[in-house]
Amino acid sequence: MKTCIVPGSFDPFTLGHLDVVKRAAGLFDKVYVAIMINSQKTGKFDFAQRKRIAELSCAGLENVEVITADGLLVDLCRALGASAVVKGVRDAQDCTYEINMARMNGFIDESFETVLLPAKPELSFLSSTFVRELMKYEKPLDGALHPVAVAYISVI
Amino acid sequence: MKTCIVPGSFDPFTLGHLDVVKRAAGLFDKVYVAIMINSQKTGKFDFAQRKRIAELSCAGLENVEVITADGLLVDLCRALGASAVVKGVRDAQDCTYEINMARMNGFIDESFETVLLPAKPELSFLSSTFVRELMKYEKPLDGALHPVAVAYISVI
Amino acid sequence: MKTCIVPGSFDPFTLGHLDVVKRAAGLFDKVYVAIMINSQKTGKFDFAQRKRIAELSCAGLENVEVITADGLLVDLCRALGASAVVKGVRDAQDCTYEINMARMNGFIDESFETVLLPAKPELSFLSSTFVRELMKYEKPLDGALHPVAVAYISVI
Amino acid sequence: MKTCIVPGSFDPFTLGHLDVVKRAAGLFDKVYVAIMINSQKTGKFDFAQRKRIAELSCAGLENVEVITADGLLVDLCRALGASAVVKGVRDAQDCTYEINMARMNGFIDESFETVLLPAKPELSFLSSTFVRELMKYEKPLDGALHPVAVAYISVI
Amino acid sequence: MKTCIVPGSFDPFTLGHLDVVKRAAGLFDKVYVAIMINSQKTGKFDFAQRKRIAELSCAGLENVEVITADGLLVDLCRALGASAVVKGVRDAQDCTYEINMARMNGFIDESFETVLLPAKPELSFLSSTFVRELMKYEKPLDGALHPVAVAYISVI
Amino acid sequence: MKTCIVPGSFDPFTLGHLDVVKRAAGLFDKVYVAIMINSQKTGKFDFAQRKRIAELSCAGLENVEVITADGLLVDLCRALGASAVVKGVRDAQDCTYEINMARMNGFIDESFETVLLPAKPELSFLSSTFVRELMKYEKPLDGALHPVAVAYISVI
Repeated sequence: MKTCIVPGSFDPFTLGHLDVVKRAAGLFDKVYVAIMINSQKTGKFDFAQRKRIAELSCAGLENVEVITADGLLVDLCRALGASAVVKGVRDAQDCTYEINMARMNGFIDESFETVLLPAKPELSFLSSTFVRELMKYEKPLDGALHPVAVAYISVI
Repeated sequence: MKTCIVPGSFDPFTLGHLDVVKRAAGLFDKVYVAIMINSQKTGKFDFAQRKRIAELSCAGLENVEVITADGLLVDLCRALGASAVVKGVRDAQDCTYEINMARMNGFIDESFETVLLPAKPELSFLSSTFVRELMKYEKPLDGALHPVAVAYISVI
Repeated sequence: MKTCIVPGSFDPFTLGHLDVVKRAAGLFDKVYVAIMINSQKTGKFDFAQRKRIAELSCAGLENVEVITADGLLVDLCRALGASAVVKGVRDAQDCTYEINMARMNGFIDESFETVLLPAKPELSFLSSTFVRELMKYEKPLDGALHPVAVAYISVI
Repeated sequence: MKTCIVPGSFDPFTLGHLDVVKRAAGLFDKVYVAIMINSQKTGKFDFAQRKRIAELSCAGLENVEVITADGLLVDLCRALGASAVVKGVRDAQDCTYEINMARMNGFIDESFETVLLPAKPELSFLSSTFVRELMKYEKPLDGALHPVAVAYISVI
Repeated sequence: MKTCIVPGSFDPFTLGHLDVVKRAAGLFDKVYVAIMINSQKTGKFDFAQRKRIAELSCAGLENVEVITADGLLVDLCRALGASAVVKGVRDAQDCTYEINMARMNGFIDESFETVLLPAKPELSFLSSTFVRELMKYEKPLDGALHPVAVAYISVI
Repeated sequence: MKTCIVPGSFDPFTLGHLDVVKRAAGLFDKVYVAIMINSQKTGKFDFAQRKRIAELSCAGLENVEVITADGLLVDLCRALGASAVVKGVRDAQDCTYEINMARMNGFIDESFETVLLPAKPELSFLSSTFVRELMKYEKPLDGALHPVAVAYISVI
């Protein structure tokens, strides 16, 4: 059984993330969406909320599980027996960043692969930062988040 | 069973290609190395030689098969039942090219994924063009091609 | 009255080109779509066909006129009294190319501006090259060209 | 009448900004230089000073007006009836950023265009950050700011 | 006698830095490794420790001297009579940054050159940030820092 | 004595090339401007003319010598005892190309360095291709080539 991890801060989980997760779910037997806890960065949503939003967005994807994790990605891969980390890439800048990250991870531990999936063009500008900006100025979130996530956010 | 295609002109198949194929072979159940026949471009090696070099390089990788193919990649994916095309990416320029290619392929047929694997840093400058340049000036090919491929080339 | 030129080889004129022309038509009083005749490059379509495809695609845009032109863009701008050249940009590579081109044009003649319009994300992978590839493999052109252009091409 | 906005933090307004504004003033009937108030970021100059420096730099450009504004750019465009936002771009990195920004703005409201103007090469390294660095180390500001702005800064 | 400066924050000095310094030492008669004191940024190591780590790493390179410095690089060049600043570049993003920096420095003072040395591929992902990340998660530093630097860090 | 090579096709030698050579002449004791003969590519000027244009442009730079050479750059470096190859870089795309080239050269022979010098901003769009385009359309060459080269070209 091939397992992969889709890591991120997911603050919050967007339709762009969902597209990556769905495609990962088609390529791997098991997908962990890992909300990485980075103690230096406090976000818009707390980790329980981020987890809930990701879970609501991924509902129905049977081989996908949302977890929170801290520490290094390489250690998480070992712990979960993952053979790959999957990341979406939107443009050259994303790629430069991810290629470097992949090489750094490979320096520490060569036992897993980094798999980059090109973002769909119509989702290529979506990011959690953009969603938080939309929220700050009270713009609608439709088309940026899963409808169920939009509903959930509206009541918390 | 998950199948992928690693397409290219492979004129010739380098250690950089081999690294991508090995990693694809760890992620997928079956890997087709597809030497794409592009009628407008004649190369250094003919297609039979390219196939032989790729086969010699991939010997021992049990789930890897070298084929030649023409036409569009999307049609090849359908014909082989492949769920993904795997490409190595060495830098931002490679990524820009591959992201565009993935979007074009997705425009024609959304039934397969493009999977990008960051090249190992020490192989990041290797290319078939570079190998042909080395050959032109009679430089040694060690470290650029598989030793068995080097031996084969020396006798053709 | 402000006039601009949207130059290109338009072999053929795509929905990506149309989007740029429409937006230019909203910013300028008069838009010339200029099919630049580059004698070294023969294309898929001859210049009369390219003009016809562009005209059919732009029908209904009242301030848009399709012309063919040769020579340097700077000379064409002078001849038409254009204050700007408008180009669509899809990614960083396009921009690098266009910024350089703008600086070269400015070296010869500073009397007009280069205006870059970011491509809509869902059109960002479209190009004439891609359309010619679709044609070569007899794939449908819908979504890449204007429906009237598709109809026209099917009968020539 | 066509109106555009040149937005920025302008902390302070440089000769690079002035070049973009002058060129926008040649393309549009009315240009608003909009000093965007971002509450999270305090700068070197307060907003009244930034406005004064921009006004002194743009003196003589009759169709240019300097304003301060907060909120989202899309809302400002609506409020001012602007058909375009104009930004200078210096290199591929600027373009990647602005193309994304344009797509995000287009997601919220498609009623205005983003227009990118390539920076003149001899101004391509100028930025407000660089000017603040020059000030910190008491280097002359000539060639980076308008002479009247230099004079104004020397007495505040 | 030709003198150059290799500036940086060196927090800490890595094998990537060492490679750049060694190559600079082959091109210039005298190399200053300048630990630039940036008062706004406190680091992992204090300046005395950074200097010690750099000195231990460069031991045996006879024409290399490690110094700490503050202020602008252009002033340091003048003070030391340096004809060049040497920087390693790992990818397009590094280059964009350094080309801009070179142009800014040239704006202030044209009396010295910026010399960019492409990083060795196998060191191209190494950075001080990465080393600090390795330390945070208690991963081995071998292959990232000079062995003597690793030993020194283990006892402070 | 430190020697470097500034290689290129120099078809023709521009003011951008001259700026790189002048700066190389300030950093090295001896500079060879090497017109690389690439048999597959015929140019606008023949090799004797290219050499003459480069020589006229570099007249007065006492430590600069113009040569023609064929074969691999690494072999030329060995033959001339050069410790470095010097290239001008204008933007991220140039850098990506040169970093790759440097790594390929380093694969064959690690005995020399690649030194990249950022182009002056006001020369950053100049290229031999652009000059040939100017010639084709009979535009003045002033500001693109050395005045003596302009005079020479006008009479051949």
